[in-house]
Amino acid sequence: MNPYLIQVNGNPALPTCLDVHVSLNGKGPSVGKGKSRKPHWAVRASEMSKRTFNPIRTIVDSMKVEPNPQKPLISLSLGDPTVFGNLPTDSEVTAAMKEALDSGKYNGYAPSVGYLSCREVVANYYNCPEAPLEAQDIILTSGCSQAIELALAVLASPGQNILVPCPGFSLYKTLAHSLGIEVKFYNLLPEKSWEIDLKQMESLVDDKTACVIVNNPSNPCGSVFSKSHLQKILGVASRQCVPILADEIYAEMVFEDCRYESLAKLSTSVPILSCGGLAKRWLVPGWRMGWILIHDRRDIFGKEIRDGLLRLSQRILGPCTVVQGALARILHRTSPEFYHNTLNFLKSNADLCYAALSAVCGLQPVRPSGAMYLMVGIQMEFFPEFENDVEFTERLIAEQSVFCLPATCFEYPNFFRVVITVPEEMMVEACQRIQEFCERHYRGSEGSQEMECDK
Amino acid sequence: MNPYLIQVNGNPALPTCLDVHVSLNGKGPSVGKGKSRKPHWAVRASEMSKRTFNPIRTIVDSMKVEPNPQKPLISLSLGDPTVFGNLPTDSEVTAAMKEALDSGKYNGYAPSVGYLSCREVVANYYNCPEAPLEAQDIILTSGCSQAIELALAVLASPGQNILVPCPGFSLYKTLAHSLGIEVKFYNLLPEKSWEIDLKQMESLVDDKTACVIVNNPSNPCGSVFSKSHLQKILGVASRQCVPILADEIYAEMVFEDCRYESLAKLSTSVPILSCGGLAKRWLVPGWRMGWILIHDRRDIFGKEIRDGLLRLSQRILGPCTVVQGALARILHRTSPEFYHNTLNFLKSNADLCYAALSAVCGLQPVRPSGAMYLMVGIQMEFFPEFENDVEFTERLIAEQSVFCLPATCFEYPNFFRVVITVPEEMMVEACQRIQEFCERHYRGSEGSQEMECDK
Repeated sequence: MNPYLIQVNGNPALPTCLDVHVSLNGKGPSVGKGKSRKPHWAVRASEMSKRTFNPIRTIVDSMKVEPNPQKPLISLSLGDPTVFGNLPTDSEVTAAMKEALDSGKYNGYAPSVGYLSCREVVANYYNCPEAPLEAQDIILTSGCSQAIELALAVLASPGQNILVPCPGFSLYKTLAHSLGIEVKFYNLLPEKSWEIDLKQMESLVDDKTACVIVNNPSNPCGSVFSKSHLQKILGVASRQCVPILADEIYAEMVFEDCRYESLAKLSTSVPILSCGGLAKRWLVPGWRMGWILIHDRRDIFGKEIRDGLLRLSQRILGPCTVVQGALARILHRTSPEFYHNTLNFLKSNADLCYAALSAVCGLQPVRPSGAMYLMVGIQMEFFPEFENDVEFTERLIAEQSVFCLPATCFEYPNFFRVVITVPEEMMVEACQRIQEFCERHYRGSEGSQEMECDK
Repeated sequence: MNPYLIQVNGNPALPTCLDVHVSLNGKGPSVGKGKSRKPHWAVRASEMSKRTFNPIRTIVDSMKVEPNPQKPLISLSLGDPTVFGNLPTDSEVTAAMKEALDSGKYNGYAPSVGYLSCREVVANYYNCPEAPLEAQDIILTSGCSQAIELALAVLASPGQNILVPCPGFSLYKTLAHSLGIEVKFYNLLPEKSWEIDLKQMESLVDDKTACVIVNNPSNPCGSVFSKSHLQKILGVASRQCVPILADEIYAEMVFEDCRYESLAKLSTSVPILSCGGLAKRWLVPGWRMGWILIHDRRDIFGKEIRDGLLRLSQRILGPCTVVQGALARILHRTSPEFYHNTLNFLKSNADLCYAALSAVCGLQPVRPSGAMYLMVGIQMEFFPEFENDVEFTERLIAEQSVFCLPATCFEYPNFFRVVITVPEEMMVEACQRIQEFCERHYRGSEGSQEMECDK
């Protein structure tokens, strides 16, 4: 049974209005404003809960399909590097947690924005002359998701809008709609290694634009922006006076031939809330340790945004104190080989997957430069059996037991996303199966007898 | 420097409106709806962040007072049992965490409502014939705060109201106002060991009442409701058809002469979201492991509320996976002596504090039966120097270096709250200092030369 489907009772479109009004001793309610009404049970879920909506869940749950029982399932769908056990975290990371536990010092409440000493550790770690940081500029959060949630919640009010990358991580829209904030999508260009269509992005800005979300390196694209492209993004934000929410959870996760730059380091005026955490680089996404770095050298956010973040952080408090206690050792003593080995592995898998799928007729993978993903275009005209990427990936599961997320999940139809954190032999096997699947379903252009493409 | 005061720049009442409009090459913005406006930097904090407000922080921060340098500070203000090191968690709890770390199985993402196996562990732990629970009835959260936040967010929409105890934990109001939900206070009666004024509570219910929050055992009162009182509360909820949000984070934390009953066990029809967690009973509040138990035997919440909780949980995901991995061992193998010793210690301190302060002229402590607190009434008429409880407690810090929270923090003026988790010798010393303070400032009734009360 799907653990998400908690309980089904009847048609969800009908109100759950059960009159089980209890009237003891023949008396109605005896006091209060309730007098004039006849109480009955009619518990409604809130408007906010109805607005809150994870498109991935909805699309995936609607994919009513079983894997081919002849082939073991290879899931390339989840952005969790830990599922196959081939990418354990560094031994220092686990040792740091045990040390924090043994100290007995990290069981109590921390301030809602995190221990001051831990905020200082993060500040020192990311501090640089171009973008200096102090403890007061850091807010520790329950994962990067809460960092993004707090950043959005402080910057935007209902009725305002935010600019969000397309394709992009679905959480931005989920959180924005949950908060009653409108989402406008700016385009990433596959033919330019997923650089932003800056003109189109700028054209979306209006008086109600509260911030631009920039995700670099990118989920789902695996792309990494160059320094000059980042400067152009900052140019738009600066001209339009729109602050940036930088989702930099994949910071430093770039392949050797590429260089990662933080937006803040390049910004001289644009205020930036940079969201990050331990999840991806340290391979512990479940630990829920995230942070916001407040970059505001021109004092544009000022006290108002800082105070707002503090107030919002007091709703549910921050991350687990044991992880906070381990943070200094994790950031300072994780071995350089660990980072290096992880990136080498990811690049090797990325190269392998890119090469294999490039050779497949009807597929157009885009070479990634970082993160843990690769996007693959489907030339739908050569697969007339399938209406769209959802059907394509659905049938890929049914026939080949390979599960890739249809990029409709990222508002980008006719692509699918491949997660490249799986063991190499699985990556090879998955690519072979995808190839077999495409070969079976590929149809040459109309009127042509030629079934082979020119690859 | 106060770590909460992140940065001060000028008058917070004035808008932070800085025109640093950047117009490169003499060109204005060249595209988009921005054309007609003249962009300038004016980043405002959201309405929600302004509504979100922790009264304790505000009251405490406004208490501009230094402790008496002659006396070491004794802080009886924070509901954190770990600060003095005299109440460590059980060794099994720490061992369970290390086992979860060593397994390497708890680094990845869990489902947003928690691992199914861990939800099952919690279900089995709280399951009883009168209130059966299965894994699907459990939602794991980042601390009991997030449990309360999710429960409120799913049950109430802006424009609706909730009923909240007075005195009561300030987070209820903070969260409700953050969500745009109105708060109505029902009275707890000190002369009846803080039982609810049920008639007054019932009189508050109207068509827009989304739920009643019932906190038992109580913070700040340390009171524990009897079975018959709980049944009467359920009677009100049942007559008025209002669901209950039960804050039961202090479940089972009652002194030996008293018995804890969960609301759900006594309910036959009223749907209940019961919020709890590891924080208090297992003495690890910083670990942020909370849960919601969904009790809905008449199917009044139904699929709608369950789905709503699931959707809302996807905003920031749940608790740290390592703590989830440790949960089974924590719940099953924590030694009975650990619970017993904690409660014995709390009761002994409660008795000591109650006896000492009962003997002080002008103070009226209310005997607690559980949790970690005791409320003390101040007969303000005998302390004419002080305008209210805030001034009283402020001066208590200045003169005696004893810090108790003024109950204005709990919407209940002219009381103060004492935290009874401090080491016994500190409790004794604190009570002596409070006595000295009261003796110095006590003034007999007007016209009376008698400075002594009849205690």
